[in-house]
Amino acid sequence: MPQLRLALAQVNPCVGDIVGNATMIADRCREANAAGAHVVVFGEMALTGYPVEDLVLREGFVAGSVQALQTLATRLAQDGCGELAAVVGYLDSDTHGPRDAAAVLHRGQVVARQFKHHLPNYGVFDERRYFIPGTTLTVFRLHSLEIGMVICEDIWQVSGPITALAQAGADLVVAPNASPYERAKDDTRLALVARRAIEVGAPLAYANLVGGQDELVFDGDSMVVGGHGELLLRAPQFTEQIVTLDLDLPGGSDRAAGRFAGLDVRRVILADDPLPAYSPAPAPPAAEPLPDEAEVWGALVTGLRDYTRKNGFRSVVLGLSGGIDSAVCAALAVDALGADAVHGVSMPSSYSSVHSRTDAADLAERTGLHYQVQPIGEMVEVFVRQLGLSGIAEENVQARCRGVTLMALSNQHGHLVLATGNKSELAVGYSTIYGDAVGGFAPIKDVPKTAVWSLARWRNELADKRGETPPIPPNSIGKPPSAELRPGQLDIDSLPDYGLLDQVLDDYVQGDRGFSDLVAAGFAPELVESIVRLVDAAEYKRRQYPPGTKITLKAFGRDRRLPITNRWRERGLTD
Amino acid sequence: MPQLRLALAQVNPCVGDIVGNATMIADRCREANAAGAHVVVFGEMALTGYPVEDLVLREGFVAGSVQALQTLATRLAQDGCGELAAVVGYLDSDTHGPRDAAAVLHRGQVVARQFKHHLPNYGVFDERRYFIPGTTLTVFRLHSLEIGMVICEDIWQVSGPITALAQAGADLVVAPNASPYERAKDDTRLALVARRAIEVGAPLAYANLVGGQDELVFDGDSMVVGGHGELLLRAPQFTEQIVTLDLDLPGGSDRAAGRFAGLDVRRVILADDPLPAYSPAPAPPAAEPLPDEAEVWGALVTGLRDYTRKNGFRSVVLGLSGGIDSAVCAALAVDALGADAVHGVSMPSSYSSVHSRTDAADLAERTGLHYQVQPIGEMVEVFVRQLGLSGIAEENVQARCRGVTLMALSNQHGHLVLATGNKSELAVGYSTIYGDAVGGFAPIKDVPKTAVWSLARWRNELADKRGETPPIPPNSIGKPPSAELRPGQLDIDSLPDYGLLDQVLDDYVQGDRGFSDLVAAGFAPELVESIVRLVDAAEYKRRQYPPGTKITLKAFGRDRRLPITNRWRERGLTD
Repeated sequence: MPQLRLALAQVNPCVGDIVGNATMIADRCREANAAGAHVVVFGEMALTGYPVEDLVLREGFVAGSVQALQTLATRLAQDGCGELAAVVGYLDSDTHGPRDAAAVLHRGQVVARQFKHHLPNYGVFDERRYFIPGTTLTVFRLHSLEIGMVICEDIWQVSGPITALAQAGADLVVAPNASPYERAKDDTRLALVARRAIEVGAPLAYANLVGGQDELVFDGDSMVVGGHGELLLRAPQFTEQIVTLDLDLPGGSDRAAGRFAGLDVRRVILADDPLPAYSPAPAPPAAEPLPDEAEVWGALVTGLRDYTRKNGFRSVVLGLSGGIDSAVCAALAVDALGADAVHGVSMPSSYSSVHSRTDAADLAERTGLHYQVQPIGEMVEVFVRQLGLSGIAEENVQARCRGVTLMALSNQHGHLVLATGNKSELAVGYSTIYGDAVGGFAPIKDVPKTAVWSLARWRNELADKRGETPPIPPNSIGKPPSAELRPGQLDIDSLPDYGLLDQVLDDYVQGDRGFSDLVAAGFAPELVESIVRLVDAAEYKRRQYPPGTKITLKAFGRDRRLPITNRWRERGLTD
Repeated sequence: MPQLRLALAQVNPCVGDIVGNATMIADRCREANAAGAHVVVFGEMALTGYPVEDLVLREGFVAGSVQALQTLATRLAQDGCGELAAVVGYLDSDTHGPRDAAAVLHRGQVVARQFKHHLPNYGVFDERRYFIPGTTLTVFRLHSLEIGMVICEDIWQVSGPITALAQAGADLVVAPNASPYERAKDDTRLALVARRAIEVGAPLAYANLVGGQDELVFDGDSMVVGGHGELLLRAPQFTEQIVTLDLDLPGGSDRAAGRFAGLDVRRVILADDPLPAYSPAPAPPAAEPLPDEAEVWGALVTGLRDYTRKNGFRSVVLGLSGGIDSAVCAALAVDALGADAVHGVSMPSSYSSVHSRTDAADLAERTGLHYQVQPIGEMVEVFVRQLGLSGIAEENVQARCRGVTLMALSNQHGHLVLATGNKSELAVGYSTIYGDAVGGFAPIKDVPKTAVWSLARWRNELADKRGETPPIPPNSIGKPPSAELRPGQLDIDSLPDYGLLDQVLDDYVQGDRGFSDLVAAGFAPELVESIVRLVDAAEYKRRQYPPGTKITLKAFGRDRRLPITNRWRERGLTD
């Protein structure tokens, strides 16, 4: 039986940085080659980064991708990696329009191409806006093995490429992916890859990207599943890495090109000689999927780190209120960038509790971040007196003086400002636009309040296990949440208990369930009505909120597109 | 020859207000009926408003639309409009999924349905995200006339419904539309409708919506074009109105259902008796398309008025700097809402010129808006002193104290804040985020600076012609633009001449032209490089900018979707 050493390259490209990404791919190919791999598979559009959005509409960008692919092929041969078959995701175009493509580079040439068939146009995806779907399949022959290619969404759909490959026959299928992280998606993925491998009757090698791109985080979790559905290899999440595996494949079947399941299947021969015998290495142990909190924490750290670095910032600044949200954001920032890159500012007003300052100072001491106190009393006083403010106007001026303070420190020192709001607040509009909502990035934008608490507890326990100081002050975790914009104010005065609120939000926002569904699920009609009203009315605030890492099935942002001007109320016609 | 009195109902629904829209449609049907019309045609999704975006994903919303359509049919018969055939755009769904649909209501029943075939998924449109395309056509017979239906994009595409109707034969085609305003689109539309009418060989009746919905304005411009391409009727832009026309149609051909141009064509008989003879009325004179500035002004007034009213605001507040942008925004607001609903605030700093105050006061006097002066010196001084600010940080604090002031007045008095930035500034990032960029709506967000000047001159000339006081101070039009954030500062110190800047922006932003194209067009390479760099770097600011009326082919917003994290630079691979 021929053997094949397969490498999956789990890489972190930067969108638009075609030159830098090409260099990174070449480096990883050398690494795979040195490890004795015969085939290396990169993620979807690894050469351009993903998603490139409307850059697809620029002719120069498309031409840049195609040109860089050719240059890369030449370079790999010059680097002594010519015998390695590199499967690289990139942006192509032909007479029909732009294509989400993968190419095989071998012996200095681009020897085969595959276009993506199924173009997702739901959730965060707009691929029908950009790409023309592929209608043919290419199978390449390397050392008497036939290797099929499918791209990302092509394995999420039953019809098309997978069925055609099952009928046409292949010894191995490789699948470049750019699959964004969502909680618990890794479980779904393994089951899916296994099902498709069984359908084709051959191993399926799934290579995902890692790293953050605006609101998305690609979590890696690359894997190989055998033709009976058995997991053969699994790479860790959130880590740039090459993993290799020796496969025992039957091979040697000389299959015909032709039409299968309605698709034309082409065969391309790269090298037809059988591989010389070599000693296989034992498969590396499959990475264990991370437990829920660790996985979410990893996604949040990755998203924050990559947004900061890829946008050229070296440091961040954030307000520290002594509360749980800012404490968790600070701990994430310290994990992502190191304590020396994190600047925390306590901005007490006359309504601030003593513990708001002591808890913030405690956080600074635990984490080692840079800490300063900037009282806002004098600023607020001028606005309130000059403009004659009271009530909500006076409350909001406090939050806005804090926003101006953070932005001034950002302008003066070059820090990226972090907004510390959580998903529950963003949902019901419990934030001050241009106040606590200012920032270039919002690390916990998609984390419900109840999950913020769980993450804080988990992170502290992790520190305990490691014999380190837990970063988050226990008092920040334990005390009742308050915006502290008027004397004695507590969140619970304006909002339902967060446990209940998050349940309703989960069904309404993530589940798109309507009023009657929510009531049927057991929630009190008045509760549902008031929450739904708050969520609908806060749409204009969400539009101006900074980007933040998506971790749920439906994040606010491109995932959930609702009009601001919208008179639909869930009760609707009976109003 | 039978005659048919056709009415086009150019209406302004509100997204989500199914009950209110149904009432409005019923009122308009009574009006058409009273005018003796036999058929009345409403715009695309007039019942739900357009675009409803992710409301399509809510089962209750879809059910609400379908139920309201049935109720409307019953109500029309009860109102004595049963003999009128009303063609109403609405949201439907069947076993395949949601449909962008039009229905014929007649004698108390929903008697025919048509689904949209071509689903635009470019520019501002995401219809492949929501709808399943139609694959059949319905032609209804009324008084021995055969009337075909197509929806919006179906007439922008050559293939499909139009070809099928040309082959199947029809005496008249009606086309409910929701076609957003863009400069000079009316010229394109007439030519297109004429071409399709000639292709079918029958009159084509095009009914568009009017009114604003977030960033879109529907401009009306409904029309009927005869089978030889001759314009028979044209409704004015931006006006809610019913227009009627008596058509001489051959009729009487008893055509067969069947398959034409690959589509199944159904025939539905509503009433087969010929119409009793009646005296036709002369066609109303076709509305003249508005000249460019008048048309743009009309779109901006409509967009601002509808955003304000449909979101429940009665008044607006904006900063008046004495400059051209805030003066034009104030004049638009006065035209949209009346002077009594407009509150202008001069917020001078120590760097403000004398004319910044006198010109703002002059504007207030000319327009009659409410005016107040709130110096920001004391506020700024506290921030600068306490935080030790200098340079850009000090400049931005001034803009941000103005932002906090406007938001405080909004919170205290319930006004909607208007952001007064123009498209050129937004393109190159020449604005302070959370400073002059604060607001719920940005009336001239999509208006290039050079067009702002033209509009100001045009509006003043219009006032002259009408014997009214020109609203905009001539000094605001004539003086060189300045942000006045440091002594003697002029825009021209940091930016190219606006005439040149707007030309490059037009090619780069609207035309998606790359570096080499721009240089080939005659722009200096250094100029192109610096402008492109500014535009790319300002993406994060634009994401947090308020919505504003789209008037160009490509507005910032859903029209232009670019990543924030983006290392592509136009020069790209040669860097």
